[in-house]
Amino acid sequence: MTDSNEFVLQEEAGHVARLTLNRPASRNALSVAMLAALSQRLDGLEKRGDIRVVVLQAEGPAFCAGHDLKELTAHRSDADGGRGFFEETMRGCSALMQKIVGLRQPVIAAVDEIATAAGCQLVASCDLAVAGPNARFCTPGVDIGLFCSTPAVALSRNLAPKHALEMLLTGFPIGAEAALRIGLVNRVSQDGARTGARALAELIAAKSPEAIRFGKRAFYAQREKPLVEAYDLASAVMAENMLAEDAKEGIAAFLEKRAPEWREP
Amino acid sequence: MTDSNEFVLQEEAGHVARLTLNRPASRNALSVAMLAALSQRLDGLEKRGDIRVVVLQAEGPAFCAGHDLKELTAHRSDADGGRGFFEETMRGCSALMQKIVGLRQPVIAAVDEIATAAGCQLVASCDLAVAGPNARFCTPGVDIGLFCSTPAVALSRNLAPKHALEMLLTGFPIGAEAALRIGLVNRVSQDGARTGARALAELIAAKSPEAIRFGKRAFYAQREKPLVEAYDLASAVMAENMLAEDAKEGIAAFLEKRAPEWREP
Amino acid sequence: MTDSNEFVLQEEAGHVARLTLNRPASRNALSVAMLAALSQRLDGLEKRGDIRVVVLQAEGPAFCAGHDLKELTAHRSDADGGRGFFEETMRGCSALMQKIVGLRQPVIAAVDEIATAAGCQLVASCDLAVAGPNARFCTPGVDIGLFCSTPAVALSRNLAPKHALEMLLTGFPIGAEAALRIGLVNRVSQDGARTGARALAELIAAKSPEAIRFGKRAFYAQREKPLVEAYDLASAVMAENMLAEDAKEGIAAFLEKRAPEWREP
Repeated sequence: MTDSNEFVLQEEAGHVARLTLNRPASRNALSVAMLAALSQRLDGLEKRGDIRVVVLQAEGPAFCAGHDLKELTAHRSDADGGRGFFEETMRGCSALMQKIVGLRQPVIAAVDEIATAAGCQLVASCDLAVAGPNARFCTPGVDIGLFCSTPAVALSRNLAPKHALEMLLTGFPIGAEAALRIGLVNRVSQDGARTGARALAELIAAKSPEAIRFGKRAFYAQREKPLVEAYDLASAVMAENMLAEDAKEGIAAFLEKRAPEWREP
Repeated sequence: MTDSNEFVLQEEAGHVARLTLNRPASRNALSVAMLAALSQRLDGLEKRGDIRVVVLQAEGPAFCAGHDLKELTAHRSDADGGRGFFEETMRGCSALMQKIVGLRQPVIAAVDEIATAAGCQLVASCDLAVAGPNARFCTPGVDIGLFCSTPAVALSRNLAPKHALEMLLTGFPIGAEAALRIGLVNRVSQDGARTGARALAELIAAKSPEAIRFGKRAFYAQREKPLVEAYDLASAVMAENMLAEDAKEGIAAFLEKRAPEWREP
Repeated sequence: MTDSNEFVLQEEAGHVARLTLNRPASRNALSVAMLAALSQRLDGLEKRGDIRVVVLQAEGPAFCAGHDLKELTAHRSDADGGRGFFEETMRGCSALMQKIVGLRQPVIAAVDEIATAAGCQLVASCDLAVAGPNARFCTPGVDIGLFCSTPAVALSRNLAPKHALEMLLTGFPIGAEAALRIGLVNRVSQDGARTGARALAELIAAKSPEAIRFGKRAFYAQREKPLVEAYDLASAVMAENMLAEDAKEGIAAFLEKRAPEWREP
């Protein structure tokens, strides 16, 4: 069994967990082992009621270089020419991206380096993202004959289509300020992405984790529905949320002009 | 019967109606009475063929503070712990937002103050929005344990997801210029939102109200559909619109180089 | 049979084809003949494996003025008051816009002039767009009693709704910089749109046409689906793309640090 600690480090400070992609020599490529390690970390955090926010960062010269091309290529000599392995890898990678979206805690990407292909998709799949001044982002599959079709799923849900298509069709890297302008990241932190992400994480960790749990799930569920159904779903969630402990405490505290104390869920 | 005039003032000038939220002491909170009053005003305007544009503005230090937390809290002592009242309120509020979207006339929010939670949703639900230089916008439900899940419906249909999630997860207020940058408002009017909204309203009031009626409905209907169905719907609407009176008059006037005279529908 | 060469010129340079709308006297209006000519050109290019990128530009003072109002008006004297012709025209125009979206090659609009109504829709329907410094864009159907409902389909898939609605409800023209800010164009080229579009076209023409063919289709197909289905679709496309010739060549070339040679599909 792979020890995921080696591939993805985990530190905690108060209610914030930091996951660090830790295969700098392979530019944190999403090999089968890396996908499994990151997935395992997220599964562990999903159960942790005391962790309220997750920051995803990376060691080395690249945030994440996307798929592991050597590993993929090695499977061309499989009996099926690689088809089985490619299908499994693409499904596994897509499942990981959706695990971030489905995670109870908000996930903040902290990007100080270049994020490429599925690495760029990882940033787009996080709820929030902070870039350092030297961060860069690209989806250069067109340079190797393999269009970034799964990254396009995340990009097209974050960016205006012409911005997404320009990245996908040219493969050209964009910098932190351009990423901010088109909505791929929330903030550019001149002191580095980790500093900016930590500040944002601590801000959110002070909020009601129960409310965030209701809300993050509702956010992604409602946005796929027509307006009437979206409001039906969200109205039901709001009523349920009103009856939960943190809303009782939070609204009472607000009306009594005191600080709320959140339940550890 | 509640006299809605007290809660929401209505003035008219030419083809423009202005609705003013008028509960400054309670920061124009969306109590049951306020929801009913605003809903009643909109129902009245829906029937008014002579009114072509609606401006929504507010009296006092807040544009709208969202739900009435005291009123909600009072119902915790109901036999069902408030469930019935909460469900009814959330459904009623969601219905109001959809009434704005469904209204025959374009609705322009004019925001000079802070718009909070469902108040921010109100701005997002209007077709257009003008901010004054001191306007602020936030969805701080996470501070009281009640995530702004219904506001998220409107925000996520107006903003890039990372911008919407930052507002929803941090509760942090953004100013007029930031709201402009992320698409929550159309314009920042240095002379105040009311001046800017009036100019925009008068511009639109000079256009064909019949065409706008066809178009506003089609706009919201088609955007929820796949591309093929969206074009089927919109093509049918265009052909129908061509056969209506204002298109006959408008196109004839254009070809004859004279000003058109719109039918009062 | 209409000779479409007269209405839409076609030049080629390497892997790039340039289509030029060539009815300057009628401001390149989308008459039945123009729709047919442009459609025929696109059908021809669809079959051309050697053409990798298409640029769409225009001769004369307007990029494209939208529907041909004189032609439409002449059909008011048809037995059915024009209904049949209007329906056919709107369907035909909508089919053309979808043909651009469905075309195997990326299409780049190069706009140096004003693009109006369905002409603005044409720009929005292209995958990418470059504006010259004097380009302008508007959807002024409200001035002639005919709301730009079909252009709204393309605009609402490119712009934030408040930006799209402001264009649609006011009919007011926006300039190149505003178009850039709201996502209607990718770049403003100070040397003129054609120069900028050519540079972008050449950049993309150097990429794998096979990969782009997989990716363009997947991009538009997945964005209409819920997230789970979008990832299922895109994962399957990626696996298929891995097994195709250009990915074999491209990834091998990358790992061997040499330039790839793309197959002519």
